[in-house]
Amino acid sequence: MHRFFVDPDIIRADELSICGSDVRHIRDVLRLKPGDKILTVDGIGTEYEVALETIGRDQVTGRIIGRNTITRETKLQLTVAQAVPKSDKMDTVIRMGTELGVKDFIPVITERVVVQGNFEHKLARWRRIAVESCKQSGRTVIPEVLEPVKFTELVKDLKEWQLAVIPWEVHKGESLKDVIKDTSVTDVIVFIGPEGGFSHEEAELAKSAGVIPVSLGSRILRTDTAAVAATANIMQIFNEI
Amino acid sequence: MHRFFVDPDIIRADELSICGSDVRHIRDVLRLKPGDKILTVDGIGTEYEVALETIGRDQVTGRIIGRNTITRETKLQLTVAQAVPKSDKMDTVIRMGTELGVKDFIPVITERVVVQGNFEHKLARWRRIAVESCKQSGRTVIPEVLEPVKFTELVKDLKEWQLAVIPWEVHKGESLKDVIKDTSVTDVIVFIGPEGGFSHEEAELAKSAGVIPVSLGSRILRTDTAAVAATANIMQIFNEI
Repeated sequence: MHRFFVDPDIIRADELSICGSDVRHIRDVLRLKPGDKILTVDGIGTEYEVALETIGRDQVTGRIIGRNTITRETKLQLTVAQAVPKSDKMDTVIRMGTELGVKDFIPVITERVVVQGNFEHKLARWRRIAVESCKQSGRTVIPEVLEPVKFTELVKDLKEWQLAVIPWEVHKGESLKDVIKDTSVTDVIVFIGPEGGFSHEEAELAKSAGVIPVSLGSRILRTDTAAVAATANIMQIFNEI
Repeated sequence: MHRFFVDPDIIRADELSICGSDVRHIRDVLRLKPGDKILTVDGIGTEYEVALETIGRDQVTGRIIGRNTITRETKLQLTVAQAVPKSDKMDTVIRMGTELGVKDFIPVITERVVVQGNFEHKLARWRRIAVESCKQSGRTVIPEVLEPVKFTELVKDLKEWQLAVIPWEVHKGESLKDVIKDTSVTDVIVFIGPEGGFSHEEAELAKSAGVIPVSLGSRILRTDTAAVAATANIMQIFNEI
């Protein structure tokens, strides 16, 4: 069944109406007819099975014939604080991270981040990718892509998270598995460095703020690979994958 | 220090000479001079520190001033048997997989693989990506990208591996961590399905051949995300990351 995101506000009793670009998609691309069924997801945790009733030029209406709260979301609330990388690497981090269950992404400006182009455009693009990947992965809650923040400011204010880790290539020590022993923790943040890595000062600043340095093995990982591998590994430690 | 791959055959006693495209790179791009040092890696496990001696039009010569056998390779020999995906997803699987320490990749033809374009060109491209990623990650052994093989034939002949696993979305059961308990095993193969997944028949065939079905969690992963996440998580189980 085809899946669509709808605003939770438009769901009233057992009816809903869909506007916007999904209308054309339902009518002209999928060529659905009244009586056909779709799945709609409200982005905050519930999936509705909907039988289409009318398919108009600007609006599709349907009747809700089933609803279920789904468990595709992880109990772990993982934030990926990704130093903004060059080219389209952030796209990959957000796409794969969303599929793997990341709760939110914070684009981070570090010493070695090279800011290119218009941030507003980038943010809009990243948010679109989060929505698309959310849909594709069957998730019901869209991960947030927050406004960019400076590394030095973010590490000063970590009270939202119970555990913070920072893979740092200079740290040849404990792995994620070694440092994450308490899986009853629910709010975790992982910092991923940019192409040139974190500076020594940044890593020291993070450590003094209570962020735990970890090693991702002895091979040098590109920043997007590091983000995806760390996400998959953390999800595995918390039995979410 | 800049890293170059050299053929093990060209290393004689304490001298070596470099030909081909690396010459122009050393001379015109990096503008290295006699006396400058580079790292050369022989692709089979040894890294050489080399002081450049002459920088000619077609050849660079140098003196080996140090050599060390490096431990960036994993003890685990992981094969990724990837059903050939559409567009450039295989590029990502090979790049990220190489960085994460995969030993070799087998492009697999399954029921739902859509073969597009020229396979010889694709193979050549994938092999170039393996070399580039190997260099970037500091690895010393280039992963092989083998000739494509049919799924039905590969599962018939698995004696090369001590453990074979197949993430299958219909299998809502044990995770990689649940099924991999014996980490003294060294040769592991993981099968990754194409965009449409493995067919029921294929999964049953694999099971009857001793391949263990696993779940990668309750979210739907794109084929490239599944490959990278499974690789990262197998490496984590074997303490290689």
